[in-house]
Amino acid sequence: MIAVTSDLLRSRGFHGTSLKAILGASGAPRGSLYYYFPGGKEELVLEALLGEVRRITRGLSEILRSAPDPVAGVRAYYGAAARELEESEFHLGCPVAPVILDALSGSDTLEEACRDALAEWEEILGRNFDRAGMAPERAASLAALAVSALEGAMLVARAHRETTPIDVVAGEVCTAIESALDGAPGPV
Amino acid sequence: MIAVTSDLLRSRGFHGTSLKAILGASGAPRGSLYYYFPGGKEELVLEALLGEVRRITRGLSEILRSAPDPVAGVRAYYGAAARELEESEFHLGCPVAPVILDALSGSDTLEEACRDALAEWEEILGRNFDRAGMAPERAASLAALAVSALEGAMLVARAHRETTPIDVVAGEVCTAIESALDGAPGPV
Repeated sequence: MIAVTSDLLRSRGFHGTSLKAILGASGAPRGSLYYYFPGGKEELVLEALLGEVRRITRGLSEILRSAPDPVAGVRAYYGAAARELEESEFHLGCPVAPVILDALSGSDTLEEACRDALAEWEEILGRNFDRAGMAPERAASLAALAVSALEGAMLVARAHRETTPIDVVAGEVCTAIESALDGAPGPV
Repeated sequence: MIAVTSDLLRSRGFHGTSLKAILGASGAPRGSLYYYFPGGKEELVLEALLGEVRRITRGLSEILRSAPDPVAGVRAYYGAAARELEESEFHLGCPVAPVILDALSGSDTLEEACRDALAEWEEILGRNFDRAGMAPERAASLAALAVSALEGAMLVARAHRETTPIDVVAGEVCTAIESALDGAPGPV
């Protein structure tokens, strides 16, 4: 049920993830939904969201760790996002975006989970830039650019059903990181 | 009814914009909805979307025309987006994003309207950078960055309910445009 909720959320948004659609796609009886998730839709969406966020956070950390430098890391991360979109025929996007856009969901818990996820991704990227020798303030603002630009580029890529917008934006973000590192004193 | 649809779309997404919610918020009887909009929800959402896109396109063109240079123009445009979010207490976001994210809306007409809107905004920005002397290919990729980064930054700003993410991202996008113009031969 969590896997089905996660796919619905990423492809149809928060309000498109109805209990009826979750039950229909998972084949589970209504009784078992409330037995396992007494909080109903909000609880199911929260579990799905947290699971996806953990997966993305782990992927981001691993990609940055195995990359030789921040530019290669960011390029590989954008590439992974593009591949995931393409493999799902542009249906499965970021799990955080739809929860924020349907903000009148009225759930503080869900909104907090989204804020935490975005802040964590920025922090992981910022620390990576920082360690490569970038000034902390610049590292933080380029990390914000990297996260925002990827969220937007995934949206544009879904609209066009092609990954080119992600590649183009990745190129510009990497140029910005490169030129900030050029002026930096080097790895610390 | 179009104004109500537009607000619902921008605050609750495509699937959150139900006919029930439109009728409830506009106070219109169901009969008049189908009289004026025989295509039902899809037609209403399309009208709302096209109206918002025209407003945004006009605003972007005017801001760029009255700005002394592309950097000032982009900064002013991000500023206008931030003000609009703030004035609506972070409820009214981009009208295009929710239609794309809820992509399984299954409407080719709606998806095409979103693609056209994004392409038009990129073209307007690209022409502006181009006229300031930037190489056409670089102008196009920085325009793609400017559009994607703003879509993403609006999303992050809504999650945090503050405009700082938009200001930070605007700063980085403007630095990128500035350094591309520095290497350019000057206005043509």
